[in-house]
Amino acid sequence: MLDELGDWRKTHYTKDITPELVDREIILGGWVRNYRNLGGLKFISLQDKYGERQITLKRGVVSDDVFDNTKFGYQYCIMVRGIVKAFNEAPGGIEIIPSEIKLLNKTPDKLPIDMTGETVSELDLRLNHRALDLRSLKNQAIVEIRGELLRAIRKFLFKRDFTEITTPKIIGSATEGGTELFPIIYFEKEAFLTQSAQLYKEQLSGVYEKVFEISDCFRAEKSRTKRHLCEIFTLDVEMAFVTMKDVLELLEELVYNAIKDIRENKMGALKYLEMENKTVVPEVSFPRYKYEEIIELINNKNGFNLEFGEDIPTEAYRRLGDELSGYYYITHWPMSIKPFYIMASKNPKYSESFDLQKGMLELTSGGTRVHNKEQLMKALEEKGLNPLSFKSHLTAYDYGMPPHAGLGLGIDRWVSIICGLDDIREAVMYPRTPDRLTP
Amino acid sequence: MLDELGDWRKTHYTKDITPELVDREIILGGWVRNYRNLGGLKFISLQDKYGERQITLKRGVVSDDVFDNTKFGYQYCIMVRGIVKAFNEAPGGIEIIPSEIKLLNKTPDKLPIDMTGETVSELDLRLNHRALDLRSLKNQAIVEIRGELLRAIRKFLFKRDFTEITTPKIIGSATEGGTELFPIIYFEKEAFLTQSAQLYKEQLSGVYEKVFEISDCFRAEKSRTKRHLCEIFTLDVEMAFVTMKDVLELLEELVYNAIKDIRENKMGALKYLEMENKTVVPEVSFPRYKYEEIIELINNKNGFNLEFGEDIPTEAYRRLGDELSGYYYITHWPMSIKPFYIMASKNPKYSESFDLQKGMLELTSGGTRVHNKEQLMKALEEKGLNPLSFKSHLTAYDYGMPPHAGLGLGIDRWVSIICGLDDIREAVMYPRTPDRLTP
Repeated sequence: MLDELGDWRKTHYTKDITPELVDREIILGGWVRNYRNLGGLKFISLQDKYGERQITLKRGVVSDDVFDNTKFGYQYCIMVRGIVKAFNEAPGGIEIIPSEIKLLNKTPDKLPIDMTGETVSELDLRLNHRALDLRSLKNQAIVEIRGELLRAIRKFLFKRDFTEITTPKIIGSATEGGTELFPIIYFEKEAFLTQSAQLYKEQLSGVYEKVFEISDCFRAEKSRTKRHLCEIFTLDVEMAFVTMKDVLELLEELVYNAIKDIRENKMGALKYLEMENKTVVPEVSFPRYKYEEIIELINNKNGFNLEFGEDIPTEAYRRLGDELSGYYYITHWPMSIKPFYIMASKNPKYSESFDLQKGMLELTSGGTRVHNKEQLMKALEEKGLNPLSFKSHLTAYDYGMPPHAGLGLGIDRWVSIICGLDDIREAVMYPRTPDRLTP
Repeated sequence: MLDELGDWRKTHYTKDITPELVDREIILGGWVRNYRNLGGLKFISLQDKYGERQITLKRGVVSDDVFDNTKFGYQYCIMVRGIVKAFNEAPGGIEIIPSEIKLLNKTPDKLPIDMTGETVSELDLRLNHRALDLRSLKNQAIVEIRGELLRAIRKFLFKRDFTEITTPKIIGSATEGGTELFPIIYFEKEAFLTQSAQLYKEQLSGVYEKVFEISDCFRAEKSRTKRHLCEIFTLDVEMAFVTMKDVLELLEELVYNAIKDIRENKMGALKYLEMENKTVVPEVSFPRYKYEEIIELINNKNGFNLEFGEDIPTEAYRRLGDELSGYYYITHWPMSIKPFYIMASKNPKYSESFDLQKGMLELTSGGTRVHNKEQLMKALEEKGLNPLSFKSHLTAYDYGMPPHAGLGLGIDRWVSIICGLDDIREAVMYPRTPDRLTP
């Protein structure tokens, strides 16, 4: 029989139970992370959003009713009314002596995944039971860091006069010529899920000058790697009246400040993930390599034979990551492998574009954009795209589009890097891959 | 011939040009909002992200080159290097005497919509040229308020220990039994765009206790009213270990604080929209009416003949708005018209549910949820839904789901209310309706 919530309300989170509260009555709520029954003595470790506290049931100290009738089970949802006591041998030096315990919801005798922290279940199994799995201390740490990262990004950009934009996820035509778009049936019309906020953020740089969006993008890529998702969370930034050079400087500062904030506010989570010595505030400015230098580095040291104009294959990035482990830029990519909206350098073989790398992983792409309509139409044609499909977008270039530059950054990938995760699916609450649509 | 950006960078925004800068050289960038040519004297009103400043070209004072060769046109994108001068007759008491002007991008002689503020073009035409239209002072004011609202909501919820969640937009099955879902082709499988974060936020209340999300939801509703969009921006909130009563209190405080922040930080924008006397900080707590009282009020005063169990038709809401113009709650809706996840009251004819109204408009729906798995399965069956389609969601209820309650709030509609907009499409940068997929 389950108890009703009734008029009980939590008075504190576990983290708020400090020595000043000794001898005070409190109400905690959460889940049974662990329990032990030593005959005349029973312990419950109650876990909530912020941590855990020990509930101690000693025969004779608590009522017989509480001692005999309290049900135990992993992840049972309970509330505890009790008195805070100092007790050196309890974790954190504090225990709760309960006067009453409510059992709000139960679990089966055997949980599908281990929640005590003793063993780690396989990721796919964990994802199948994600609402349970997310209660693990590792996942709590990841989510704390992800949250802090998003807060840090917003804080940084608002301070620098950025406007947060919200652009549509449903788009009318296959922009960027993508074959990696999910089609939607939009009433009787064909439409697609947006692949990036690229064109909209460019338009809006002509209104708000400095804009950003943090939102979902969708990629119908069938790649089943540990680095790709079909639904990704992306930071998009665009700035008017600047070039790539300014974006490189902004991004360095953003990375610097975000990691500084995470270290300042979430060191406990970093430590739990054993990343406190790896996720360190990077020195700015970041090393800058031209694409040709990187190609040379790969070819010389690693026995590759890459030619100008080739994209860098994963295996080469892996070797590159052995040489360059920190944050670094690769700039001046060949124009031939960049999208139509990227500006050419003075030597049109090169483009005013960059990637921000962290070791082997690409975290960001960006560059100076074309802001002249005729140039943009020419670029579309050169890429084999039909300017007619971009009619509505091109219209924006008739009305005083400023010079602009920007970047796109994969939040999930950055969370993976900061948290030292092996698989990007761990960075997301409910990941979407070609094989995973639930939960 | 257009100028290159080169090494010019803006030194200030228009808002930063204060009397302390008199006699200093500055660089501004933006768009020509208006211009006048009085022979020996020319004025340009340069508009940027934050406002406008007068650029004064007087023959003999500026160089002949600047005076004779500066091109004029509405919404031309320009940068101006010049000296700040005090001049009482200029707007804000300041004018800029230019030493050099760059023309970065031009516009056609005739713009498709009026940008001087003299006339207001029809909304559909404005939406067709949205990147231009958003530069209007009215739209600047709306976007400022929308931005402040989002900041205020996050600030409020973070202070109260909420975790910001990010839930998937692509879902595997037609939850909530909706006929209003957009189908997607997800590789070879059928999938849908999410209609709300409802089920995910409920699951996550069992992990983070207090959660919120601000994100896109998708409704394939063919209604062509001024109050509906197909892609909506929604605030979802869910709290564990509480009931509807606590949610009502939280939401009152949220509304109170958000409007307080907007009035404190964006009074200029409110005044521009002539809403400074209408969008006032509401008194809490809000009036609370039971559904049955509202039905009675409508029937008595307005000649309707609504019966218990009926949804309230738009026309009745309109009349209701004449009686009750502020924020108020309608609680205890008939169980029969509420979704399966809503908890019944002690008398199961009623539900533990509420709407928050502002006048005639429904802004929020919420309530206490069912947290017991058997009850939830029974509720699904009673609503004619197949528990098998909810298999993955129901699993979460096996693992200690806490009692929980929450709300969903339409951000776009709230922006409309705060800004006094007649049409919800004005509250969104790029609205999506059954007829509009571009820009």
